[in-house]
Amino acid sequence: MTDLNPVLEQLRKFVADREWQQFHDPKNLAMLLASETGELVAEYRWVANTESDAHSRATGPRERIVSEIGDVGIALLMLCDRIGVDLASAVSDKIVVNAQRYPAETFRGRADRK
Amino acid sequence: MTDLNPVLEQLRKFVADREWQQFHDPKNLAMLLASETGELVAEYRWVANTESDAHSRATGPRERIVSEIGDVGIALLMLCDRIGVDLASAVSDKIVVNAQRYPAETFRGRADRK
Amino acid sequence: MTDLNPVLEQLRKFVADREWQQFHDPKNLAMLLASETGELVAEYRWVANTESDAHSRATGPRERIVSEIGDVGIALLMLCDRIGVDLASAVSDKIVVNAQRYPAETFRGRADRK
Amino acid sequence: MTDLNPVLEQLRKFVADREWQQFHDPKNLAMLLASETGELVAEYRWVANTESDAHSRATGPRERIVSEIGDVGIALLMLCDRIGVDLASAVSDKIVVNAQRYPAETFRGRADRK
Repeated sequence: MTDLNPVLEQLRKFVADREWQQFHDPKNLAMLLASETGELVAEYRWVANTESDAHSRATGPRERIVSEIGDVGIALLMLCDRIGVDLASAVSDKIVVNAQRYPAETFRGRADRK
Repeated sequence: MTDLNPVLEQLRKFVADREWQQFHDPKNLAMLLASETGELVAEYRWVANTESDAHSRATGPRERIVSEIGDVGIALLMLCDRIGVDLASAVSDKIVVNAQRYPAETFRGRADRK
Repeated sequence: MTDLNPVLEQLRKFVADREWQQFHDPKNLAMLLASETGELVAEYRWVANTESDAHSRATGPRERIVSEIGDVGIALLMLCDRIGVDLASAVSDKIVVNAQRYPAETFRGRADRK
Repeated sequence: MTDLNPVLEQLRKFVADREWQQFHDPKNLAMLLASETGELVAEYRWVANTESDAHSRATGPRERIVSEIGDVGIALLMLCDRIGVDLASAVSDKIVVNAQRYPAETFRGRADRK
């Protein structure tokens, strides 16, 4: 995966150039994340599980999906940046928590975890 | 921001150890992202805009918010990994698109963009 | 509130005329609900709490908000109809549960419930 | 479907008894709707399309699904009530719009509508 740090700089400049920090409090950014996630979900709502891998790689859908992932990533990065959260640490710490919550030997091949 | 690449390796191992790839088709991962985003939104739903920065840093709420950000990040990274999308490139490309859609001189200080 | 029963009939006919029942399994309808909710959330993401009542009644925004509420209602009704849930009973039963979970004397004027 | 009007009265009383109107501006209620929808989506995220009808009727899952539908309905009704929208009219009007957007003869049996 390409380094996100230059992207974060690009994003900060984009926001600063438009003086949008005033609208980007954490509550609004959480709503932005929810609306962008809704658009990503829309790309898969009529696609069956068994077709969703192929759909993700088909011309047309893929372009839209990557575009929506970009929007979701923008919202998530802006929220992290606003409140001073390191995304990589937050993810890594949660994987550790989940690993304890779902021991591999117990949950192997089981879909019934929450 | 810390490098996400080792976290991605940690995440792949977590999933492989539990043989959960079979449940992680893109459709299901989009739903996971939506449900985790919902939990993050829940942390802000009764907090006013003007209090949401302080809320994000208060002990208790912050711990929960970082935990939910971790879950959202996990879902997003797993989706990107499953369908072969580079998150940093997707975000960077979308910032370029948005920069053209919202010229700084026109949209400076305006909240009325979509 | 106007009776929803004729609307439900109207909705069933709309779906049947297009032979869309085949796509309307509960999983897909839950995703539809999530994406439509995301569009409704988008209408409020840059609006402050203190302005959101006025925003909801302003020409332009109101038309879009009512339209998005229509979409959310469609998704919710189709899901209820598909799985045989009476929406009014589900809501009423949950109010009773919430009333026990949040006793009025304890939670009066408090935003800190989950 | 049972009449929603008495349920709406029950809901207004529940909110008034707790003096929660002060937190229930439209922005906050849109976030409530998003978080409750996320919980409903969670019930289906690991269930295949082909199993989601049976899942919706299985003891255990069904109780949780009906409970989450209750929460989603509560959020939607509170938002409609707050901003003076008649849910049945909003849904009915949108079905008319959708019927024009998706003519039956063109979209019969097609999942590729947006």
